[in-house]
Amino acid sequence: MITSTLTPLQITPVVTMALNEDAPWGDLTSQTLIPADATAEASLVAREAGVFSGGAVFAAAFELLDSAVVVELLVADGAAFEKGATLATVAGPARSVLQSERVALNFVQRLSGVATLTAAYVAEVEGTNARIVDTRKTTPGLRVLERHAVRCGGGHNHRFSLSDAVMAKDNHLAVLTYDGRRSVTDALLEVRAALSHTTHLEAEVDRLDQIEPVLAAEVDTIMLDNFTLDQLRTGVAQVAGRAIVEASGSVTLSTVGAIAQTGVDVISVGALTHSVRSLDLGLDVTLTAQPEN
Amino acid sequence: MITSTLTPLQITPVVTMALNEDAPWGDLTSQTLIPADATAEASLVAREAGVFSGGAVFAAAFELLDSAVVVELLVADGAAFEKGATLATVAGPARSVLQSERVALNFVQRLSGVATLTAAYVAEVEGTNARIVDTRKTTPGLRVLERHAVRCGGGHNHRFSLSDAVMAKDNHLAVLTYDGRRSVTDALLEVRAALSHTTHLEAEVDRLDQIEPVLAAEVDTIMLDNFTLDQLRTGVAQVAGRAIVEASGSVTLSTVGAIAQTGVDVISVGALTHSVRSLDLGLDVTLTAQPEN
Amino acid sequence: MITSTLTPLQITPVVTMALNEDAPWGDLTSQTLIPADATAEASLVAREAGVFSGGAVFAAAFELLDSAVVVELLVADGAAFEKGATLATVAGPARSVLQSERVALNFVQRLSGVATLTAAYVAEVEGTNARIVDTRKTTPGLRVLERHAVRCGGGHNHRFSLSDAVMAKDNHLAVLTYDGRRSVTDALLEVRAALSHTTHLEAEVDRLDQIEPVLAAEVDTIMLDNFTLDQLRTGVAQVAGRAIVEASGSVTLSTVGAIAQTGVDVISVGALTHSVRSLDLGLDVTLTAQPEN
Amino acid sequence: MITSTLTPLQITPVVTMALNEDAPWGDLTSQTLIPADATAEASLVAREAGVFSGGAVFAAAFELLDSAVVVELLVADGAAFEKGATLATVAGPARSVLQSERVALNFVQRLSGVATLTAAYVAEVEGTNARIVDTRKTTPGLRVLERHAVRCGGGHNHRFSLSDAVMAKDNHLAVLTYDGRRSVTDALLEVRAALSHTTHLEAEVDRLDQIEPVLAAEVDTIMLDNFTLDQLRTGVAQVAGRAIVEASGSVTLSTVGAIAQTGVDVISVGALTHSVRSLDLGLDVTLTAQPEN
Amino acid sequence: MITSTLTPLQITPVVTMALNEDAPWGDLTSQTLIPADATAEASLVAREAGVFSGGAVFAAAFELLDSAVVVELLVADGAAFEKGATLATVAGPARSVLQSERVALNFVQRLSGVATLTAAYVAEVEGTNARIVDTRKTTPGLRVLERHAVRCGGGHNHRFSLSDAVMAKDNHLAVLTYDGRRSVTDALLEVRAALSHTTHLEAEVDRLDQIEPVLAAEVDTIMLDNFTLDQLRTGVAQVAGRAIVEASGSVTLSTVGAIAQTGVDVISVGALTHSVRSLDLGLDVTLTAQPEN
Amino acid sequence: MITSTLTPLQITPVVTMALNEDAPWGDLTSQTLIPADATAEASLVAREAGVFSGGAVFAAAFELLDSAVVVELLVADGAAFEKGATLATVAGPARSVLQSERVALNFVQRLSGVATLTAAYVAEVEGTNARIVDTRKTTPGLRVLERHAVRCGGGHNHRFSLSDAVMAKDNHLAVLTYDGRRSVTDALLEVRAALSHTTHLEAEVDRLDQIEPVLAAEVDTIMLDNFTLDQLRTGVAQVAGRAIVEASGSVTLSTVGAIAQTGVDVISVGALTHSVRSLDLGLDVTLTAQPEN
Repeated sequence: MITSTLTPLQITPVVTMALNEDAPWGDLTSQTLIPADATAEASLVAREAGVFSGGAVFAAAFELLDSAVVVELLVADGAAFEKGATLATVAGPARSVLQSERVALNFVQRLSGVATLTAAYVAEVEGTNARIVDTRKTTPGLRVLERHAVRCGGGHNHRFSLSDAVMAKDNHLAVLTYDGRRSVTDALLEVRAALSHTTHLEAEVDRLDQIEPVLAAEVDTIMLDNFTLDQLRTGVAQVAGRAIVEASGSVTLSTVGAIAQTGVDVISVGALTHSVRSLDLGLDVTLTAQPEN
Repeated sequence: MITSTLTPLQITPVVTMALNEDAPWGDLTSQTLIPADATAEASLVAREAGVFSGGAVFAAAFELLDSAVVVELLVADGAAFEKGATLATVAGPARSVLQSERVALNFVQRLSGVATLTAAYVAEVEGTNARIVDTRKTTPGLRVLERHAVRCGGGHNHRFSLSDAVMAKDNHLAVLTYDGRRSVTDALLEVRAALSHTTHLEAEVDRLDQIEPVLAAEVDTIMLDNFTLDQLRTGVAQVAGRAIVEASGSVTLSTVGAIAQTGVDVISVGALTHSVRSLDLGLDVTLTAQPEN
Repeated sequence: MITSTLTPLQITPVVTMALNEDAPWGDLTSQTLIPADATAEASLVAREAGVFSGGAVFAAAFELLDSAVVVELLVADGAAFEKGATLATVAGPARSVLQSERVALNFVQRLSGVATLTAAYVAEVEGTNARIVDTRKTTPGLRVLERHAVRCGGGHNHRFSLSDAVMAKDNHLAVLTYDGRRSVTDALLEVRAALSHTTHLEAEVDRLDQIEPVLAAEVDTIMLDNFTLDQLRTGVAQVAGRAIVEASGSVTLSTVGAIAQTGVDVISVGALTHSVRSLDLGLDVTLTAQPEN
Repeated sequence: MITSTLTPLQITPVVTMALNEDAPWGDLTSQTLIPADATAEASLVAREAGVFSGGAVFAAAFELLDSAVVVELLVADGAAFEKGATLATVAGPARSVLQSERVALNFVQRLSGVATLTAAYVAEVEGTNARIVDTRKTTPGLRVLERHAVRCGGGHNHRFSLSDAVMAKDNHLAVLTYDGRRSVTDALLEVRAALSHTTHLEAEVDRLDQIEPVLAAEVDTIMLDNFTLDQLRTGVAQVAGRAIVEASGSVTLSTVGAIAQTGVDVISVGALTHSVRSLDLGLDVTLTAQPEN
Repeated sequence: MITSTLTPLQITPVVTMALNEDAPWGDLTSQTLIPADATAEASLVAREAGVFSGGAVFAAAFELLDSAVVVELLVADGAAFEKGATLATVAGPARSVLQSERVALNFVQRLSGVATLTAAYVAEVEGTNARIVDTRKTTPGLRVLERHAVRCGGGHNHRFSLSDAVMAKDNHLAVLTYDGRRSVTDALLEVRAALSHTTHLEAEVDRLDQIEPVLAAEVDTIMLDNFTLDQLRTGVAQVAGRAIVEASGSVTLSTVGAIAQTGVDVISVGALTHSVRSLDLGLDVTLTAQPEN
Repeated sequence: MITSTLTPLQITPVVTMALNEDAPWGDLTSQTLIPADATAEASLVAREAGVFSGGAVFAAAFELLDSAVVVELLVADGAAFEKGATLATVAGPARSVLQSERVALNFVQRLSGVATLTAAYVAEVEGTNARIVDTRKTTPGLRVLERHAVRCGGGHNHRFSLSDAVMAKDNHLAVLTYDGRRSVTDALLEVRAALSHTTHLEAEVDRLDQIEPVLAAEVDTIMLDNFTLDQLRTGVAQVAGRAIVEASGSVTLSTVGAIAQTGVDVISVGALTHSVRSLDLGLDVTLTAQPEN
């Protein structure tokens, strides 16, 4: 039922920036090699299977350069496709199509790469209650786009930024309680009182014995950081539904399934966005010189 | 002798943007958990070996948020380091250090990942005349930084953008000569005449028989696209020093050595920037609450 | 323990914009009437009692125009002061002090107005468990500053934006359930499943009989919109701690106390930011012409 | 005959900024609760009587987010309306209509509040020659919009900024003449000679005996600051048409009529923009889910 | 007594933009040819005589790139200098000095060119009452700087923009009175009533018989457009001090003196900014490699 | 075959900036003198002969302010025209046409001035092999536009910026070789090795005996700076086709022909952009008040 969408307000500034970055004083190649009145047709073709993401960004890379270019998206964001599938078509002035090509691909390949990788993680936890979530380890400037791609792959988002949820880590708790006059529980209760009632409070623990003091402060989520599978199982049993349980730390495609089986609610995976392989999507272009030339 | 450097004009806007993206209305966690007068000391530690890149960007992520934070870089951009090495130290108000941490790491991990991957490619071609170069398959918004990282890894840069060199591909040549009235050589000579005398002219060929017509137009570089090793050797012999020879297409760490052995001058590798694993660098933070609290 | 603070990243752009807005091509009066080497001393004086907010913004209005101006804040944000109190001092080149005066006052008067009004509401609910919170009815462009001012006045913040919490209103629920195939409870459960685990889910109800279906979906907060005092008391009893209870709608200084007595947890007050009287703070300036003039 | 209008160049940047401020990473509520193909119709309804201002800004808040939304303005800027009047209609994709609602209202409520308050002041001086004018005590970032709103209410604008007119206050004059070698008259004559011939020169006086020296310098406007009604009458007689006479200082709705009766030409009222109550305008929204859903 | 000055708020954005325009991804020459630790000393030398303008802009072009560069201005804006004079010195890292050189010169040569040309016009009208003023025919983006340069040359400024004064031209008047029901005088009186009391009203006339109707509306300035010297004399006599008289149209260095002799108050000269020869100023650079290299 | 074109991405930001600069809070004259429903027709007319440049920028100055204005370009960029020719027509709301007039003219007059001056230089070298090229002495902020204008006049562009080609001047070479351990040739060979293979390497020489060492490093272009005609001839013979030969220094319309006769390939002329007279183009406007007014 939910459809993750991006609006022009989110797309236009970053695509405009990228187009300027890639052609600060125009496309010399197109201007010298391509007649002004030549036209082009192009297809975005999948050179490998995957999950699509960034269709609207791909389209904007052409349309923001030249409103005479028409892009038709054949696959919706979030849809899986096979190798060889045609994902979109592009038509318009040849100079403009060729100038936008690389920028358009840079976006859609990266975002589809994120979505495809996310989908692989999601597939590994199928049948469990665990959801795969992203982290703040995103590419500077592309967080809105990359988190959309995670949702396209069936993942969920963690907090977007430092401004919309609180995550209390060991360092924080050490400072809060450093002189022994105050317990972790009391410290977190004070924090809760200071926060907006809409702000989610999550605390990280490194050992099983840290769980109870944190739960006593009624945190919303408890993160079990770098726990073994056994420890995770024990932790989940100990929490017993009193908070959301998040597993974190060194999660890979080969370990995520077992982690999900421990009963945790959320598994955060930095690799979804910090180590992404661009998906192999290519643009097949056909140029058409005008007959009267 | 060359030192690749980044200036504040290149660093400040992108780091400021990233800091705002990560905390649009401040760091709730620091503001609620950390006393305003607590201080922190932190070390940037290598959790794996690699080549450093992005030190000045790492520093700016702290200093642009709070000029009271002091960053000392212990390793120069371009230097190799071992697992466990301390790469930089950070000291200042604890709230600020913790707020900048993730943004600083997102930059330096990515750039050091690019530099380290580049260095691996460069190592594979050691002893040959081939240089490893990047492509325009960079992260939107980060091209200046990522190309710097390639240089840190011992690689070279290809053209920066569509504005500073010409690359004539098959599509372009097809249009230029579509009606048979003009040869590829004549078409390229006309292009050359139209270009600035400082603009590099490179042409891509897909087959050996395309080499001579292109060379006849005195292009500066000829790109042999998706050639086999045998074809590359033949091509290099055929060009015979009349142009720079670039090999391109599906280059991997396992194939790059053999490609270099064919005698090509330049090997372009999109993977240097389009499929990067962030290097595992971490920030070890020690918080210090003020005694009088 | 919490100190609401603003960072230069939050202050600099909006103050720079305001300085440019107020002097697009310089301050003609200062440049023609004031000798370049004249200096000025000034005091920010309270012409009425209130709660201070925006000290750092006030200072930035001088320092961003001319780094030679020195501002000393004598009162911390959040502190109450009496009529006649001196809140800050300013010293530096007279031209710069006079050019920045109006912009500095426009900010600090407005923010202190918000803080003072908030404090009045907070005083009315003293002794109850209710907290006073703001809304999204803020001045375009000044949300970060105005919400800081609310905290300075002892209030709390509601969600910052449409991006960091969900508020399901009657219209939303009507659409979700319009064809009768799905209950409100089921619809909200689906929404919950789609959201990030850190996203707060609040639902608005207009009648007492809507409470149970919403609670059955385990919303985090239930907003009782435009309820009478009796209805609020009944609603609080009915919720019985299963969710945070927010009262909303036409809250004034004269009604807020009674509303708080009904046992609600949160009272949102749009007037904190949408109808603010600038506090009467003035700058007493003494100009000093240089002796040698 | 004059129609105060705002152009897209004036509206687009500030509205875009406000939309981004209110939804930095999208509207979670609309995206999770509202089907992508649902549509909405909405009416902007007056919950109290007033004078309209900001229609084009209201429309832009919808149209800049989503060009598929259609806004029809039923009342022109500057027109008075009764409680219950429908001022505009909005129709389009439900997600977009709901996302823009609060930003659109924040603008139009504030601007109509300014226009309505201005109209009240203007009504009080009807039948006199005095005009009501605004000051530089505007909301940072909104000066162009708020001054338009003042004109919508029948008021006039004072100087826009420090750059387009000169206002010599007591402090300025004290410096200009501090050593007794030069009279106020001579000092102002020098200033006049230095200014552009198009720059208006206004001088502020605090006492009746300051009027003649200032008039001798042929200032364009003389401001009588914090004069009693008697002093104003005397001052007007003394000036005798040799300059425009402006009354300033602590003007309220209850005193403005009497001030106007003294014969002054201009009465400046800071409260028009520094202490504004947003007018109570609401958006009545009807959502329509698509039949085929 | 008046000193025309530019503030960092006016200089920083335009100089930053120019530095980025001139080195979008750094200065390849400096980075490859100049050792990182080499230093440079440079002098700004006049290769011809002139009037200086833009010293602070020149300095900013170095300091904004690299805060380690120190610029000392030896001549104040507005001062005349002889050929061969040293106007400023620059010292700092050689790479930075060389990278900023061209941008710094582009600004200071242009602005000193404007100042020098203005001074030539001003010299021609010496001994008369006429002042030389600029127009809106400035370089897009540089209006604040170029108008400062005009003042450095002894000229005055006309209105800055369309927003700060009114200029009624023949076209405007034709429309205002097109149906004969209203006289020019009545039309202008209505305009005056609609304007802010601080807005200067200027009307342009093409013929002597248009003067009286315009004066009857008490305009502040009357512009005699493309009048012969005789017509100007007659016009001045006719106006007889009732308004400021501006001469405009095809003014050159050889005609301006005679125009001034007719008794007009203001002579506007578009050529001051629309057709400027950059003054010949050069930077003499001495590089110093570090001894230990 | 080459057509120099500008895209909206290149035009929109600079024209928007100029429109805001010229009317920061609207066009007072149009708003008070012109009825809102009046329309205007206008023609861009050549008051002198020249070469056209900037048609798309001229059009954008109207269309970006008001999309209801329609501009038709009658002459293509790069075309020569006679005095009296009509170059474009404009039609739309009179207020908008009049508000944009000056900005539109400021751009098109300057760019056509550059194109016309360039064409004069190009005409002087007709029949030789020399091409006329621009320099980096452009107006800050307008480099993309002015270089386009140079191409419109039949000239070519030199390097765009410090980032896209290397120019080794005497200072650079002095540092590279200062301690005598390394020859100029060796130093330049090292630079070449460090540069991207697409980066053009140009070296400047001041004396004939510097040519051989530079050529030995296989530079792409050698610049003969301030050579006499005899020296140029000798230099060309000495280079003998081993590099492109550029003449530079104090080139004027009266000397350029003889310089071209020496056989140099490229003549760079700073005056093309640093000392430009705006071409005399005017807008003839006809206003049409609506009949029903």
